[in-house]
Amino acid sequence: MNLALIQDTDIVSRSSDASGDVLLASLTGRQHEHIVNIQKLGPGRELQVGLINGNMGRATISAQDESSTHIEVCLTLAPPKPNPITLVLALPRPLMLKRVLQTATSLGVKDIHLIHSNKVEKSYWQSPQLNDEELHEQLLLGLEQGVDTVLPHIHKHQRFRPFAEDILPGLVDGKKAFVAHPSPDADTAQCQQEECYLAIGPEGGFTEYEVEKLQDAGMQPLSLGPRILRVETAVPVLLAKLS
Amino acid sequence: MNLALIQDTDIVSRSSDASGDVLLASLTGRQHEHIVNIQKLGPGRELQVGLINGNMGRATISAQDESSTHIEVCLTLAPPKPNPITLVLALPRPLMLKRVLQTATSLGVKDIHLIHSNKVEKSYWQSPQLNDEELHEQLLLGLEQGVDTVLPHIHKHQRFRPFAEDILPGLVDGKKAFVAHPSPDADTAQCQQEECYLAIGPEGGFTEYEVEKLQDAGMQPLSLGPRILRVETAVPVLLAKLS
Repeated sequence: MNLALIQDTDIVSRSSDASGDVLLASLTGRQHEHIVNIQKLGPGRELQVGLINGNMGRATISAQDESSTHIEVCLTLAPPKPNPITLVLALPRPLMLKRVLQTATSLGVKDIHLIHSNKVEKSYWQSPQLNDEELHEQLLLGLEQGVDTVLPHIHKHQRFRPFAEDILPGLVDGKKAFVAHPSPDADTAQCQQEECYLAIGPEGGFTEYEVEKLQDAGMQPLSLGPRILRVETAVPVLLAKLS
Repeated sequence: MNLALIQDTDIVSRSSDASGDVLLASLTGRQHEHIVNIQKLGPGRELQVGLINGNMGRATISAQDESSTHIEVCLTLAPPKPNPITLVLALPRPLMLKRVLQTATSLGVKDIHLIHSNKVEKSYWQSPQLNDEELHEQLLLGLEQGVDTVLPHIHKHQRFRPFAEDILPGLVDGKKAFVAHPSPDADTAQCQQEECYLAIGPEGGFTEYEVEKLQDAGMQPLSLGPRILRVETAVPVLLAKLS
């Protein structure tokens, strides 16, 4: 936890001065435990905090009891610039989904479309990992890791064809868009800070039919080279290569 | 397992013809289980194989019993080009070490120096994950994932200063070398297919003293931007950025 994220419900009182928002807040649960047991911080000590979807800054611990850490917060810093790349991701298996969401969030991605694909097991869509609460938890962990406050949006598309035919063309219209797929060219593709779309298939890859559909929607194939990468490796590698 | 790796001890007989090595081999244990239970392949079916530190090719299953899959192998393809980047990695905690070794191996890295650093817990060096057998297992999994046969070399340096003062300068002499550390410049560094060194610190980063020592040895700071990444994310991101 490189940043303690404050939710609206943690705020006890709120005021503004010339230097920014001043808050009194109370951290409980996992964050309180982390501050006490891992960071070993008590009254008088400072920590880095951020308001979810708001500014970041320093907090001073004013008091602590068994279940909560009370902090005085001054929020003066804007969160870092968002990653301009939107991920379109064949739904990974539940355990990998957790890691991939954390990774993508820590790298500043703000929109993630989880889509179905031929090689995605249908049962994955019933996983408790896809509940809004579970997803939210992974996004928080990613923001706390990457030192950011702006929650990504997760969009779920449980049917491939309606997504590829009816939704994707409107999303990528006029923007750069790539699908990770073996291809002789497009190896030096870059997004250059522009809004851009990147689709990554499941373990085993998109089918030829799916790649065709994604190309019809405006995506160009982008080669990863001769090596086959796990999805959790392909995501950071391609985000880094494109930006 | 995108590639079944054949060890010398798996080989039953060996001959050569104009098209390359022809082997009869017998796969057991984890590989046999994977072929039977996951890939569901039986006699007459083909799979992609490689000889450890040798060529890759196709194998045909000639017979199968409860504990082994017998294959006829023709090895005609060279493994992919190695990644020219040597990793210098502050020893991660044991569970993360496994993932990082698999990831770096799947990305073609062939030399990994595990070093001590102020923020590395001394107990990590006693972890069973550091046994040669355990390390070998992770490297095999990385090669099977990335479709490669050439085993990386792991070098362990349990004391920071002798490594930074006596060993590192000789290694990086005349080559590009970077240490991941906040810095205003060097953001567009590239290895451009040359042999190159990259040092990545522990969670919490290298100390200023350590960064100084690494710079003395010939490494330039390389910024990751405003976000703090887990080691397992920083490794693929920096390997992708540099190559």
